[in-house]
Amino acid sequence: MLPIRSNIRDMAGYVPGEQLNDPDIVKLNTNECPYPPSPRVFEAVRAALTGDRLRKYPQPLGDTFRRAAGRVLNVDPDGVLIGNGSDDILTILTRAFVPEGGLVLAPTPSYILYKSLAEIQGARFETVPFTADWQLPTAWPAGGHITFLPNPNSPSGTVVPLAEVERLAAAVAPAPLVLDEAYADFADDNGLSLLGRVPNLVVTRTLSKSYALAGIRFGFAVADPAVVRELVKVKDSYNCDVLSLAAATAAVEDQDYFRETRAKLLATRARLAAELPALGFDVTPSRANFLWCRRADRPVKPLYEELKRRKVLVRYMNYAGYDGLRITVGTEVETDRLLAELRSIL
Amino acid sequence: MLPIRSNIRDMAGYVPGEQLNDPDIVKLNTNECPYPPSPRVFEAVRAALTGDRLRKYPQPLGDTFRRAAGRVLNVDPDGVLIGNGSDDILTILTRAFVPEGGLVLAPTPSYILYKSLAEIQGARFETVPFTADWQLPTAWPAGGHITFLPNPNSPSGTVVPLAEVERLAAAVAPAPLVLDEAYADFADDNGLSLLGRVPNLVVTRTLSKSYALAGIRFGFAVADPAVVRELVKVKDSYNCDVLSLAAATAAVEDQDYFRETRAKLLATRARLAAELPALGFDVTPSRANFLWCRRADRPVKPLYEELKRRKVLVRYMNYAGYDGLRITVGTEVETDRLLAELRSIL
Repeated sequence: MLPIRSNIRDMAGYVPGEQLNDPDIVKLNTNECPYPPSPRVFEAVRAALTGDRLRKYPQPLGDTFRRAAGRVLNVDPDGVLIGNGSDDILTILTRAFVPEGGLVLAPTPSYILYKSLAEIQGARFETVPFTADWQLPTAWPAGGHITFLPNPNSPSGTVVPLAEVERLAAAVAPAPLVLDEAYADFADDNGLSLLGRVPNLVVTRTLSKSYALAGIRFGFAVADPAVVRELVKVKDSYNCDVLSLAAATAAVEDQDYFRETRAKLLATRARLAAELPALGFDVTPSRANFLWCRRADRPVKPLYEELKRRKVLVRYMNYAGYDGLRITVGTEVETDRLLAELRSIL
Repeated sequence: MLPIRSNIRDMAGYVPGEQLNDPDIVKLNTNECPYPPSPRVFEAVRAALTGDRLRKYPQPLGDTFRRAAGRVLNVDPDGVLIGNGSDDILTILTRAFVPEGGLVLAPTPSYILYKSLAEIQGARFETVPFTADWQLPTAWPAGGHITFLPNPNSPSGTVVPLAEVERLAAAVAPAPLVLDEAYADFADDNGLSLLGRVPNLVVTRTLSKSYALAGIRFGFAVADPAVVRELVKVKDSYNCDVLSLAAATAAVEDQDYFRETRAKLLATRARLAAELPALGFDVTPSRANFLWCRRADRPVKPLYEELKRRKVLVRYMNYAGYDGLRITVGTEVETDRLLAELRSIL
């Protein structure tokens, strides 16, 4: 074997959720949107699908997307950093701020990718347990080179109030607090309003969930333009392709479609949150597009397996003995099916 | 300013070639293919352009592409690593092998991105001059964590014989020799045949040049499957999107179209290489899709500027006083235009 760095050799590697090809499967395991993206996305990709666009390099900084995002989110376009999925953004941030042997901090249970990002960088990773009601602890470790806070959190779907986000940012300053808002579009509030006031805040977003574009890989960060200028040095020059850029721009520009999809999802989330407890689940109130479901009376892993056998795929998550099912909010029909199978099994 | 790592703050950042939007411009500066990609690419992207494909995550390892590349190149599909452009592949390799403070080696003058990759990683970067006829020096520095060898090289378009590649691989072992074959499709030979025999060889490819897909960002590495399994831990889980994967797979599967495009390019390259010397240029014999053009009688930077004013964009490259024009091989019509403007200027 070649001399791969020991931090890479020793790590297990992040395992993404199962991506099964079976079209019959009800896929509720990776928080994809059950509705298609905006029709404008298809128009935009078709318009970009010319020999001249494909054979030439795309815009390095994605200026057209940045302007669109700036208008829609009311932020400075120069403070927008484009990414090949928000995983790319999280990687860029880790590389920009964390030296080898440095320290990455995150709450737990939370998004397990943060640990992999630390390991790849050869950095230490420390987690801080959420309180029992999924809030931040009063004390936060010192010396972190970066802190990741997903808000809403996965797997819980819970949110930390913005005042607490601001308090944490002050506690970790001058190191950055990365507010991972992959699911913020399903919540009532988000951290963009803090950006001018909290200099060490970086907000990250993805188009994979609320814009139904997991397949095209597009995410972005919003931060101080001076910070973005440094982050640009770390990203690959052309990290987003011409078709993804076209799709992403069209998606954020169609806010009517976005609101319509969001409303449907929130209605189904409310229904699912109301029905699952009758089947014996402890369901954490969610501000995301999934529900964190546990139960005290029986193990949930066999439930996950039996659902999978019946072609309903949810995510079984196990955080050192603390386990549960993370169930993505699907369409109404998919929800009928999930509930019917659960009733049949239980 | 936030505490960005000093290696990032201090670096200038890689500056990609100018991407001008003016459709009237004859763009011969970033080695894009002047012909469109295969018609099958358009069919494949249109077929993948469904709500279900866009809203769901793509294949993490790109298995469909890997099988296609395996068939076409006669390599083990498990030895194929997919990348969001070959820049992504070069980044993954650097992160896998080079610790902070480590050493990256490359010949010079060569692809200037290698320096940026070292800087982002917080590693040292040392270059070794090519000989006057663009061959490898007899001695190579010890202690490198990775060595990059572009073959054909940019800006020269020259090749190092495979026997010399093998000798260099032995000299740097067990550290990897990354044979950057971005332009190998325009040469007479390539390093894939060495793979079984030379354990520390990693071959990288891009679809940006010979497959006319710079806009969709797709590259890949071919190496020992055991090495690829480690590299997978370093890449983003979903580093290639569903449309790029569809395009890339269709492109490599249409080898008839590929050969046809290649033949046209090589014919134009031969014509250009024959005509430029009559205009006073010293043209290095090229095995790539560009020509390295210097002249002893006058500075070339004003020529670049005057060509740009006349809407013909070539690449002016300056390696500490050693400068020249790197001119991409365009269509016959673009070549007519380039030669006419040069005649007019000179």
